[in-house]
Amino acid sequence: MGLVVQKYGGSSVADAEGIKRVAKRIVDAKKNGHQVVVVVSAMGDTTDELIDLAEQVSPIPAGREFDMLLTAGERISMALLAMAIKNLGHEAQSFTGSQAGVITDSVHNKARIIDVTPGRIRTALDEGNIAIVAGFQGVSQDKKDITTLGRGGSDTTAVALAAALDAEVCEIYTDVDGVFTADPRVVKKAKKIDWISFEDMLELAASGSKVLLHRCVEYARRYNIPIHVRSSFSGLQGTWVSNEPQGAQKVEQAIISGVAHDTSEAKITVVGVPDKPGEAAAIFRAVADAEINIDMIVQNVSAASTGLTDISFTLPKAEGRKAIDALEKAKGAIGFDSLRYDDQIGKISLVGAGMKTNPGVTADFFKALSDAGVNIELISTSEIRISVVTRADDVNEAVRAVHSAFGLDSDSDEAVVYGGTGR
Amino acid sequence: MGLVVQKYGGSSVADAEGIKRVAKRIVDAKKNGHQVVVVVSAMGDTTDELIDLAEQVSPIPAGREFDMLLTAGERISMALLAMAIKNLGHEAQSFTGSQAGVITDSVHNKARIIDVTPGRIRTALDEGNIAIVAGFQGVSQDKKDITTLGRGGSDTTAVALAAALDAEVCEIYTDVDGVFTADPRVVKKAKKIDWISFEDMLELAASGSKVLLHRCVEYARRYNIPIHVRSSFSGLQGTWVSNEPQGAQKVEQAIISGVAHDTSEAKITVVGVPDKPGEAAAIFRAVADAEINIDMIVQNVSAASTGLTDISFTLPKAEGRKAIDALEKAKGAIGFDSLRYDDQIGKISLVGAGMKTNPGVTADFFKALSDAGVNIELISTSEIRISVVTRADDVNEAVRAVHSAFGLDSDSDEAVVYGGTGR
Repeated sequence: MGLVVQKYGGSSVADAEGIKRVAKRIVDAKKNGHQVVVVVSAMGDTTDELIDLAEQVSPIPAGREFDMLLTAGERISMALLAMAIKNLGHEAQSFTGSQAGVITDSVHNKARIIDVTPGRIRTALDEGNIAIVAGFQGVSQDKKDITTLGRGGSDTTAVALAAALDAEVCEIYTDVDGVFTADPRVVKKAKKIDWISFEDMLELAASGSKVLLHRCVEYARRYNIPIHVRSSFSGLQGTWVSNEPQGAQKVEQAIISGVAHDTSEAKITVVGVPDKPGEAAAIFRAVADAEINIDMIVQNVSAASTGLTDISFTLPKAEGRKAIDALEKAKGAIGFDSLRYDDQIGKISLVGAGMKTNPGVTADFFKALSDAGVNIELISTSEIRISVVTRADDVNEAVRAVHSAFGLDSDSDEAVVYGGTGR
Repeated sequence: MGLVVQKYGGSSVADAEGIKRVAKRIVDAKKNGHQVVVVVSAMGDTTDELIDLAEQVSPIPAGREFDMLLTAGERISMALLAMAIKNLGHEAQSFTGSQAGVITDSVHNKARIIDVTPGRIRTALDEGNIAIVAGFQGVSQDKKDITTLGRGGSDTTAVALAAALDAEVCEIYTDVDGVFTADPRVVKKAKKIDWISFEDMLELAASGSKVLLHRCVEYARRYNIPIHVRSSFSGLQGTWVSNEPQGAQKVEQAIISGVAHDTSEAKITVVGVPDKPGEAAAIFRAVADAEINIDMIVQNVSAASTGLTDISFTLPKAEGRKAIDALEKAKGAIGFDSLRYDDQIGKISLVGAGMKTNPGVTADFFKALSDAGVNIELISTSEIRISVVTRADDVNEAVRAVHSAFGLDSDSDEAVVYGGTGR
């Protein structure tokens, strides 16, 4: 029996009852002979409450102090969890990110882990303790300031510790049963995936699946740490994310892992761009300088008669205003006609390593959408993913149609599948 | 203009409005040309709420984890305070006890400061920042664990930092105007003291005055750091506690500083103790082994006929049960007749360096009590203090009578005085 890293999210430790339930689960793992390291998020709405307080004293809270504030949340949950475990007769010690050796860069509010030196965790384990570590936080290498890792940071903490401690597995406990072939709220017949590859999981995360964040999966792939996503409420086997399926995980190769969708993006079309070298570069330099992350980019061939082309891209709706402002400001230098902004779009993505060697997948995908009467506005592909942009109103229907067409429905015996997306 | 350490208690930073008000006051000190270090407690009831949570998950929370939990409170208040100051256009950085170099022993929940190495604070000040430091907490020298200093610990943090940084003054901001000649809730005519010596303040603190804790005054005396106790609401001059009165502080020597009272204690009488060597030692060894702090001890001469004596002592009511249990357990070994427990007592103390050289003070004190019809049960004296134990019901009347008899009333022009007690 080796070392296991378990991560519990805020909804699993929302109150004293939740903390006691989680403590029992942790003690069970310890009783099964594992060394156990636990990464915990702040309780329930704690972080939101702290953000509210910050906004009351300062409209634009400073990064360093904001991080100092937010990290109080995990300090509370981890100390309580350690107490609850000790109350069950087992030894536990809690550690801040800094004490656990989570070293980051100095970019407050979204720091990146650059090293993990878990000497104190190792010592605590060797002395028979369960080690509880604050998720989401670290200490900056140069200034020794407290930093936070940004959204989903606790998952990354867990994977990074698992890598540094050479853990057998990183278990991510959440309030759903695992990763599904589509969002179960949209597709009633979505199935839980038993195993999915890192690559397919990365594409699903990038396409709107919210169970695991891209950064965390990327880290796990780099260090080859198997992730087991499962429910802290049910105790059932969840979804394994790893290089190769193992043991009880089914081993047939899936063509399609799942269908992801995302309605959080908007589309900007830059109309009437002169079709000459440097125009696209100028547009995306203006957007990048405004620190906006873009997703899909599509450029059509230009109309021969005018020598003008249109360039469309998608981006988070929240950053739409900023992008329009940045482009308007650069309009003279770039030389386009006009901008169109559209936030009534949705994106549907089909993900699966199998499509590399199955050329019919793309055609089947478009046919399923067409049969469902869904019009396609943009198309973008990678080696193991096809994404289309449609009207937002069409998204749910499109996801159901594609899920069914590829034999992913739970009552279908048509296809051998694993992959997918959860909520 | 030199360096000033300011300490704000939980009631001063109870909500966002309080934090903004305190931020303005801090910025004013900075604008006046001072380097400013601020020590802050947890917001309002935060600490009590955290204690509640701990009790929900574990009936007897472990020391190390309990400290980890409680220190989240100052982390929140200090980060918010730094944000509020930055929002006023001034630079501020917050520091945990550990970051501020507050090194303690390893006694969790009531650690003692053994060293202060404020290198990061000094650097922050030199770079033009206001430094905000979490009160009440430190880091243990041997294990590098987070510790807390116990009740009133933030005051001690402030004085310790003032000493380590060679500050001009340590300002303790609170919700009263300073130290009074008696508790203003009991004695309407109690006066604010402008200046009081460390020695008299120590006796007042030990006798029931709650404005400053004994430990904090002791630390200030050892390093000769003047304390200025004042209101965070009014902006008025408060009470200076120092070796010698200075400048605007009046300089006449007071005979009596003030009258303190305390109704938080109980009295245990050990009846029928054989009057032979080692008996008292056996009794107080039993009590000390139960980790009970006792206050007054009184032994009367034994009755010649029986060779037996009675020994009485006072202790916090909360520890009464434990003391009785410890003594009953040791009854056979010690050999006394019985125990009497009485929690309806009160203590009145008269404090003033002048009584050393004024032999009439004791007689006047007893006469004032006698005139007020107050019966004295126990008497205990130090060089600059007389304390008596009476019925709890008599305490308020006794305090008023003594306050008046020594010319301390605000409408009296009889005596030259400063000293006193606050709430």
